[in-house]
Amino acid sequence: MSQHNKIMSRFDTIAFDADDTLWHNERLYVNAQTKFKQLLAQYHSPEWIDARLYQTEMRNLDHFGYGIKAFALSMIETALELTEGRISGADIQAIINFAREMLAADVELLEHVADTIPILAAKYPLMLITKGDLRDQEMKIARSGLSAHFHQIEIVSDKNQANYARLLQRNGILPDRFLMVGNSLRSDILPVLALGASAVYIPHRLTWQHEVVDSPPPEQPGYYQLEHVGLLPELLVGLEHSGQ
Amino acid sequence: MSQHNKIMSRFDTIAFDADDTLWHNERLYVNAQTKFKQLLAQYHSPEWIDARLYQTEMRNLDHFGYGIKAFALSMIETALELTEGRISGADIQAIINFAREMLAADVELLEHVADTIPILAAKYPLMLITKGDLRDQEMKIARSGLSAHFHQIEIVSDKNQANYARLLQRNGILPDRFLMVGNSLRSDILPVLALGASAVYIPHRLTWQHEVVDSPPPEQPGYYQLEHVGLLPELLVGLEHSGQ
Repeated sequence: MSQHNKIMSRFDTIAFDADDTLWHNERLYVNAQTKFKQLLAQYHSPEWIDARLYQTEMRNLDHFGYGIKAFALSMIETALELTEGRISGADIQAIINFAREMLAADVELLEHVADTIPILAAKYPLMLITKGDLRDQEMKIARSGLSAHFHQIEIVSDKNQANYARLLQRNGILPDRFLMVGNSLRSDILPVLALGASAVYIPHRLTWQHEVVDSPPPEQPGYYQLEHVGLLPELLVGLEHSGQ
Repeated sequence: MSQHNKIMSRFDTIAFDADDTLWHNERLYVNAQTKFKQLLAQYHSPEWIDARLYQTEMRNLDHFGYGIKAFALSMIETALELTEGRISGADIQAIINFAREMLAADVELLEHVADTIPILAAKYPLMLITKGDLRDQEMKIARSGLSAHFHQIEIVSDKNQANYARLLQRNGILPDRFLMVGNSLRSDILPVLALGASAVYIPHRLTWQHEVVDSPPPEQPGYYQLEHVGLLPELLVGLEHSGQ
């Protein structure tokens, strides 16, 4: 990484979350869930289906983990429960097809990402830290066209403080010299701040209920909030000058 | 890793496959598949069900990848196809439960593993290289009780030559100084030999059809075959002395 440090920078590494920070993701789930509710419309209200599906996902999280395949299995299980097993084979197949379409979907970058990432990559070593299904995430990174800008790509099973600590240690990065950028307070911001690193929260219009935390964004040193990633270079220029 | 190299060794790293090299895995799939065939016994012969399930798995591999969740989705899809959608909701739920039981199953080490790994770990830095579902593999490694013996654990989406090459390069290991141990010629042995590294093939009684290669084990320098992992320390002593 030394070629980046000709001039001493405030951060040794800037890390990005991927789903709904660099590219759209949650809307794939929302769209599939809308079609799922249409399948079950004769049995239950949309609100009840949403609530039961979320319950099933939380019950299955320990064993099935995150990702599209886990979501598909939870949709099938919810459909069986909500119809007392009367759902048709064609409808179960339709649910599996939702998953296959999600896995094959184009990667659509968020606004400002395609312009901003190369600018940042010229000044800082960039890291991508994402959680979920290994193969699915690898395919999305490849399809995104962004991978050449990232020095390192880390796919973890969960984004908790212990996993971040291990990742920084393994790469010899001091928390004080690390900045994480993401759309989830729960996964990208709070565990990173807890380590003493810096974090930029960029809220996304769609956020999965599980990632939502009740507490307001923290007011503490090292925490920043931006409206979109296009504002990040300017924030960084400010931080470099102020030495914060 | 330098503490291991007080005496110059033939290998800088010995890497192990996990599933069916260190612990039983394929039998979980075989058992689930047996129950799956019982569910569908009124519709088709066991041979036909096996053949159609394998077809479905291969068709889904690109999108669903390896692992238990992918297997569950392929079983459900096969059941729908083989019953023309007439399979009951209770039977679909039974298939999802097979997957949940597989994910929660105890990790049972293969014979000689518990004795041999600590002996090897005292002489060589050990690495674990496994493919499949990130969370599932992490849980198995934790439950195995072996993780303290491994310097490094790598979970990859596929074990091909490119992924091995990247892994060695990232860790600064020369192929000539790397030995891989595993039960799959396709995933553990052939891609490693192709890089110029060494490989020890330890066949397992149960091997998934997809991992079976038609060609006989290669006759080439750096290739070894053993009956069980308990014979590995002796093989290594021989290699250290012969300088091969």
